[in-house]
Amino acid sequence: MPVDSLRVVSDLKELRALTADENGAQRVAWTSVWLDARSWFQSRLKGLPLEHHYDAAGNSWTTLRGDSDRALILGSHLDSVPNGGWLDGCLGVLAGLEVLRGLVEDFDGRPPITIRLVDWADEEGARFGRSLFGSSAFAGTHTIEADRSRTDRDGVRLEDALRSCQINVEQIGEATRERRNAAAYLELHIEQGPVLESMGIPLGAVLGTKGVERHAIAFHGQEAHSGSTPMSVRRDALAAAAKLALEIRPIARKHPDAVATMGSVKTFPGIVTAVVGRCETTLDMRDLDAEVLASMLAEARTASERFAKEEGCTVDWSRIWSIEPIPFDARLIEFCEEAILEIAGTFHRLPSGPLHDAAEVARAGIPTVMMFTQSVAGLSHNKAEDTKVEDLMLAVRAFDRLAGKTMKWLRDQERNGQAS
Amino acid sequence: MPVDSLRVVSDLKELRALTADENGAQRVAWTSVWLDARSWFQSRLKGLPLEHHYDAAGNSWTTLRGDSDRALILGSHLDSVPNGGWLDGCLGVLAGLEVLRGLVEDFDGRPPITIRLVDWADEEGARFGRSLFGSSAFAGTHTIEADRSRTDRDGVRLEDALRSCQINVEQIGEATRERRNAAAYLELHIEQGPVLESMGIPLGAVLGTKGVERHAIAFHGQEAHSGSTPMSVRRDALAAAAKLALEIRPIARKHPDAVATMGSVKTFPGIVTAVVGRCETTLDMRDLDAEVLASMLAEARTASERFAKEEGCTVDWSRIWSIEPIPFDARLIEFCEEAILEIAGTFHRLPSGPLHDAAEVARAGIPTVMMFTQSVAGLSHNKAEDTKVEDLMLAVRAFDRLAGKTMKWLRDQERNGQAS
Repeated sequence: MPVDSLRVVSDLKELRALTADENGAQRVAWTSVWLDARSWFQSRLKGLPLEHHYDAAGNSWTTLRGDSDRALILGSHLDSVPNGGWLDGCLGVLAGLEVLRGLVEDFDGRPPITIRLVDWADEEGARFGRSLFGSSAFAGTHTIEADRSRTDRDGVRLEDALRSCQINVEQIGEATRERRNAAAYLELHIEQGPVLESMGIPLGAVLGTKGVERHAIAFHGQEAHSGSTPMSVRRDALAAAAKLALEIRPIARKHPDAVATMGSVKTFPGIVTAVVGRCETTLDMRDLDAEVLASMLAEARTASERFAKEEGCTVDWSRIWSIEPIPFDARLIEFCEEAILEIAGTFHRLPSGPLHDAAEVARAGIPTVMMFTQSVAGLSHNKAEDTKVEDLMLAVRAFDRLAGKTMKWLRDQERNGQAS
Repeated sequence: MPVDSLRVVSDLKELRALTADENGAQRVAWTSVWLDARSWFQSRLKGLPLEHHYDAAGNSWTTLRGDSDRALILGSHLDSVPNGGWLDGCLGVLAGLEVLRGLVEDFDGRPPITIRLVDWADEEGARFGRSLFGSSAFAGTHTIEADRSRTDRDGVRLEDALRSCQINVEQIGEATRERRNAAAYLELHIEQGPVLESMGIPLGAVLGTKGVERHAIAFHGQEAHSGSTPMSVRRDALAAAAKLALEIRPIARKHPDAVATMGSVKTFPGIVTAVVGRCETTLDMRDLDAEVLASMLAEARTASERFAKEEGCTVDWSRIWSIEPIPFDARLIEFCEEAILEIAGTFHRLPSGPLHDAAEVARAGIPTVMMFTQSVAGLSHNKAEDTKVEDLMLAVRAFDRLAGKTMKWLRDQERNGQAS
């Protein structure tokens, strides 16, 4: 039976009515609105032959048992940022639910392999600053030491917030048990960027999540009086920073999907009557190819040193954070493209700039792919976030098609004895 | 009798011992340390045939009466910024005092014209944000409306601080009476910049104070996610601002003495993961030639609009403050050059980037000139401010020579009936 893609839109609207206010979605993880969203989700499972449990990290698992224990996992997250959108995360969970409903019908409650739907706990990290919480616990990349000291802006400890949701912070590592029999992972998500819209294409196959290099760069020159200091003797830290702000752009543009951003500039003393003596900037560079990312970083560093020298300044760098690129599974990317092409008649391959739970699943060695659906104006993380209903409907159908292809692939592996 | 230039250095050191702490000079106007400095100054007048009074704006006038009422005025200021230097302002007052001492000797207490020494009240504006307080009251360019609402950082009103120094804010306009018979004004000051030092020249004749155009410039683009927004669709407000930060430099360098400074850059939202949606900057441009200054401003504005367009942004400008260039008197500049050449064997002409009390006096139509002495490393407004003792001694001798030439000029005018 084909999926009822309009039912997904209707579910999304029902969830929005329950968990959004005039400022947008308020399903922040470890809050009562989020727990309400999860209860509502469970109410949607009634009457279906599905098992449900929460794992040790608070991930919500809904299982349709199949002939084989090998499991295809569909997933995303119900939590949102404060004043968030109606689609970020919940589209993937509710589309997954619709796929499950269809499979229940198609296989009379017993598909050849096991299908699981996961609602990851705290993808956004909005309250405690730790994104991909549940999926990293699942992947085993989680570091409990850092979590013990996390607090929200009101001083509430993460540990205590978890306990009020029946989660013991000391045991979240046990979520890795859910990896047993996991054979593949699929996630549908809104793009949260303008690429698909600009191409007029509703759906895209995601190649992976880009690696990120995030650095603080400070230029040190000489503060001086703006009136009494001739141009020729200035050591202007802002001039060196301005050159770098412009130079990172050609560095990124050499590569089709790379991005480089100077997001923050601070000037010291930062007054109208003084040449800038110190300029603190930030740089965020991303690409799907680790070698490209490394070469971009090296080029930016070399350029910064050249600009500092030209301006009689010095420069120092310190890494804020970095993560390697995480490519998705080549075979699943093919299936994703086929599914999109069959449903929408056109497709595009693109990397994801933002991180997603799928990146953690892929890091755990499970074949993974994501499908993106177009975002209106590229907006997300605010109440203006939107996707045209016709695109949402195409997305649900294409995602169901992708799940079918993946299931068949896993079943064929089983039959050919390739399962390990 | 030649002036005793070492006595001036000794006076400066005595004043420093009385009014500086380990962080530098603390002679902030309208404070007890400043009043102490002024009392100490008056104590230095004892035994000399000099009259003294404070005018309605708190300027301190010391008068050596001459055969004619026409007056040559020497002046500067004893007040300092907090944590200031030992020379800024007081050099001019104490060199002027030494010139008076010499004239008392030379003319047996009765020179052909009247000589007055003024210690202007609150040149720095450090406490209430209104610089050139006393000299602008003298010049009649003062606006009492703005002063009525001024407060310091502790909430003390300017009006009340003045009252504790026996000044009635409603009457400060009466200081214009001191302009009567004023025939010329001379001021010796440290350069507070690196020009003379870089040329290896101890003293310079000042051509005037530069005009200033001070503007707030804001670029408006589109905030966007640093990961999901391709380089090609960004509207990066920082990029437009960076282009302007670099472009103002060639604009200023077309003119020998012009300066242009972007002193403050603020980015919004100003986080590592977002393309800058709004960038607020400041621009300070200065030149001695009003037409040059106007053309620089026009070029910067045109460039900012071009850069905004190139980056898909808009730009708006608002004037923070401006003042026209104030050229000094051509004849007095010649005297100043002659005096320096005779004493130091070499001289340089230069405009002043910073404003000085002399600018207010010149605005009042009184022939004016300033002499600068070299600053070590161009530093001022902090305790590292310094000038070599041999340069200070040359400065006192050259300033005395300048006073002599000016006095002779005024006396000759008198004799030729040119006095008006």
